[in-house]
Amino acid sequence: MARIPFDEHARFVRSLLAPLGARPTERVSLQHALGRITASPVESAIDLPPFRNSQMDGVAVRAADVAGAPVDLPVAGESAAAPGTPAALAAGTAMRIMTGAPVPEGADAVVPVEDTEPVGDGSARVRVLRGRDAGEYVREAGSDLRAGADVLPAGIRLESRHLAAAAASGRTELLVRERLRVAVVSTGSELVEPGAELGPGELPDANGVALRAAVAAAGAVVVHAGRVRDDVARLRAELDAAVDAGAELILTSGGISQGAYEVVRELIEPNGGWVGSVAMQPGGPQATGIHRGVPLIAFPGNPVSAQLSFALFVAPSLRAIAGLPAAPTERMPLAGPVRSIAGRRQFLRGRRTADGLAEPVGGPGSHLVAALAASELLIVIPDDAEAVAAGELVDTVFL
Amino acid sequence: MARIPFDEHARFVRSLLAPLGARPTERVSLQHALGRITASPVESAIDLPPFRNSQMDGVAVRAADVAGAPVDLPVAGESAAAPGTPAALAAGTAMRIMTGAPVPEGADAVVPVEDTEPVGDGSARVRVLRGRDAGEYVREAGSDLRAGADVLPAGIRLESRHLAAAAASGRTELLVRERLRVAVVSTGSELVEPGAELGPGELPDANGVALRAAVAAAGAVVVHAGRVRDDVARLRAELDAAVDAGAELILTSGGISQGAYEVVRELIEPNGGWVGSVAMQPGGPQATGIHRGVPLIAFPGNPVSAQLSFALFVAPSLRAIAGLPAAPTERMPLAGPVRSIAGRRQFLRGRRTADGLAEPVGGPGSHLVAALAASELLIVIPDDAEAVAAGELVDTVFL
Repeated sequence: MARIPFDEHARFVRSLLAPLGARPTERVSLQHALGRITASPVESAIDLPPFRNSQMDGVAVRAADVAGAPVDLPVAGESAAAPGTPAALAAGTAMRIMTGAPVPEGADAVVPVEDTEPVGDGSARVRVLRGRDAGEYVREAGSDLRAGADVLPAGIRLESRHLAAAAASGRTELLVRERLRVAVVSTGSELVEPGAELGPGELPDANGVALRAAVAAAGAVVVHAGRVRDDVARLRAELDAAVDAGAELILTSGGISQGAYEVVRELIEPNGGWVGSVAMQPGGPQATGIHRGVPLIAFPGNPVSAQLSFALFVAPSLRAIAGLPAAPTERMPLAGPVRSIAGRRQFLRGRRTADGLAEPVGGPGSHLVAALAASELLIVIPDDAEAVAAGELVDTVFL
Repeated sequence: MARIPFDEHARFVRSLLAPLGARPTERVSLQHALGRITASPVESAIDLPPFRNSQMDGVAVRAADVAGAPVDLPVAGESAAAPGTPAALAAGTAMRIMTGAPVPEGADAVVPVEDTEPVGDGSARVRVLRGRDAGEYVREAGSDLRAGADVLPAGIRLESRHLAAAAASGRTELLVRERLRVAVVSTGSELVEPGAELGPGELPDANGVALRAAVAAAGAVVVHAGRVRDDVARLRAELDAAVDAGAELILTSGGISQGAYEVVRELIEPNGGWVGSVAMQPGGPQATGIHRGVPLIAFPGNPVSAQLSFALFVAPSLRAIAGLPAAPTERMPLAGPVRSIAGRRQFLRGRRTADGLAEPVGGPGSHLVAALAASELLIVIPDDAEAVAAGELVDTVFL
C-alpha cells in the first residue's frame, strides 16, 4: 500500500478540524473563566474609578483655602474607604480622608498627611504646610475608564489579571468561546482497565488515559470516553453515544491496520472514510472519517504511536482553538549519529542534553511507552534521510 | 517609616513559605493525576510487554522450519490481539498472527506477511519466501521493562505521556504530593461582590477574583475565600474559618496602610506580625504574620499592587512547590525613557514590541487594572535609578 507524505496527512487533518475553530459562545462566571478565551470585547459596566476619590491619606480641602500655606483649618469629620457619602466640605475647613475614600463635595484637592501637622491634639484643627492646586491627589470618577469603554479585547486567553480587570469594571460573567468537546474511544479486545488483573493476552488500556489527559492539556474537554472490543456493532454504538454526548470530534485508537478484526477500518471505510498509511515512524497507520457528521481521527493502537499521532496531527489545531501557544520547536545539533528509513519521516523520542544537543531516548521501536515518558522532545529526522551525523542540526518539537 | 529593600522582603517571604515545600502525599487515580507531582518513583506492576507477542502481522513459525525458504507450511489457526492463549504451534506448521498478538508456545519467530504468499486460496497452506532467525519479530515478555522496575521517577510533573506509561505498566493510582491549600481573604468595608449594584463609596472586590485565579494558576488550590469589612473581630473569625478549612497559607488584601481602620495590621501586629513598607512601586505596604500557626502574607488593597505583590513575592514559591517552571525573565532594551524614584524598585507594566523592546503600558500610577490586564510583562527599574534611557537593557518578568 502506498504511503502518503506526512505533510499531506497533517494538512488534511488540519482542514478537517478547521471548521471547529468557529466556536459557539457561552457565558461563564468570573470564577470559572480562568484559561477561557473571550468571545467579545469586555466593556466596563461602570466608571473606573466609580467615584471621585483620594489618592493619599491626608485632608481634603479647597485648593483656594490652602493657597497661602502654612494655614490652620478646622477639621470637619473624615471620609473613609467605606460605603456612604461623606458630608459636603464647607469653605474654610478640612476633612480627614483615607486613600481611596470619596472626596467630599466642595473639596477639590487632597493634602497628603506628610504635608500637615496637628494643631494641639489634632482632633479639632490641622495645619496645612504646603498648598495644592485644584485636582491634586484627586482621582476623578471615570478618569481611568468610562462606563462602556473596553477593558479587555476579544480573543484573549483569560489570566488572573484579566479577571481582576473584569471584576473591577463590575462584570460578573464573561462571554467566552465554548471549549471543544471531544470523545476518546479505545478499541481492542485485548484491552482492560489499567490496574485490573491481566489474563492471558490482555493489556492495560494506556491510550484511554493518555489521550484523555492530552486532550485536556490541549485546552479541550472530554465529554465521552469509552473502550470497546473488536466488534463493529459495539464500536458504532459507542460512537453514537459519543455524538449523543455532544462530541464535536472523535478520537479513536486501534483498529486501522492491515490485519483482520480492524474495527475502525470496517466501520469508516464503507462510509467514505480514509484508512491508510502515512510515511512516518512511529505511527504509520492513520485514518480519518466522519461519524454522523462528526469528524473522526483514528490513531494506531500502539500507545507510543497513538500519542505521537495526537501530538503531531491533532494537538496543534486543538491548542490553536483553545488559544494556547503552539508547542515550542527548536533546531539543535544531534548528540550522536542516527539511521533512518528513506521515504519516512522519523520521530525519535529525545531530550536536550546539558550541552544543548538533541539526544535520542530509547530505541526507534514504537512500543516503549516508558522511553516516551522519559522524553521531553521529539527529534525529527527528515523524510529522505537514511542517516544523520552527530552534530548536524535537526528540528525538534517539545512535548 | 523606613522602607525595607525589595530583596529583603522577598527573601523573608520565601523563608516563611519554604517549610510548605515539604508536601504530604496522597494517592490519586490516573484520571485525576494530570499536572500533579510524583511523590515516589513509580514501579511497573507487570512485565512490559506482559506476554511474548508479535511485532508484525504475519505467521508465527519455528525458525528451523523456514531455514530452507521458500517453503510451504500448513496453516494451523491464528493468534489475534485478544484475550486468551493460542494453541501451541506444532513442528512443521505456521500460525497466522496479528501485530501485538501472543506468540504461540513452540514458535520462536514471526515471518512478516510481505514475506509470505498464499498457497491455493491460502486458507490451508502458506508459502514462506524468506527464512528468519529465532527471535525475529518476537517481543519477549518483560523485554522493555521488568515488573518492579521504575517507569517514572519521583518529583516529575505528570503529563499525558507519563500517565500513559503508568497505565501501561498496570498502575491505576499514583502517589503524588498534595497541592498547597491556600485561603484568600479580601478586606475593606467598601468592597462588594463584582457585578453587584454599587452604592455610594462602594467598589467591586477585584482582589478576591484575581488572587483566587492567580493561586490556581500557580498550582495551588483555594480551600477558603472570603471578604470582610473593616472589623477586626470579623477578620479574626474569617481567618479562623480559613484555618479550619485546612489552609496552609493565608493571603489577604487591604488593611495594612498607615490610615485608620487597617484591620489586618490591627490583628497581626499584636501577635508579632510585621507590617511595614517595602521600597517598591507599586505595592509599598506589605505585611506578614502567623494566624494560629498558619503563615499569612498580606498585600495592599489596591488591585494592581495586590496582584504584583502576589506575582513577585508569593508566586515563585508556589510555582516551585507545584513543580511549575519559574515565570520567564529576559533582559531587553527599553522602548523609551522612563523616570523613577531613587530608593524604590519600580515595576512598570509593559509589553514586548514587535522589535523586541520593553514598552511600558499605561502610567506608573498603581490603580489602573485595565493597563495591567493589557500587559504581558513587568519592566524592572532598579532601586537606585532615577531615570533609564531608551535603549538601555532592563530586566523583565513575564506575567
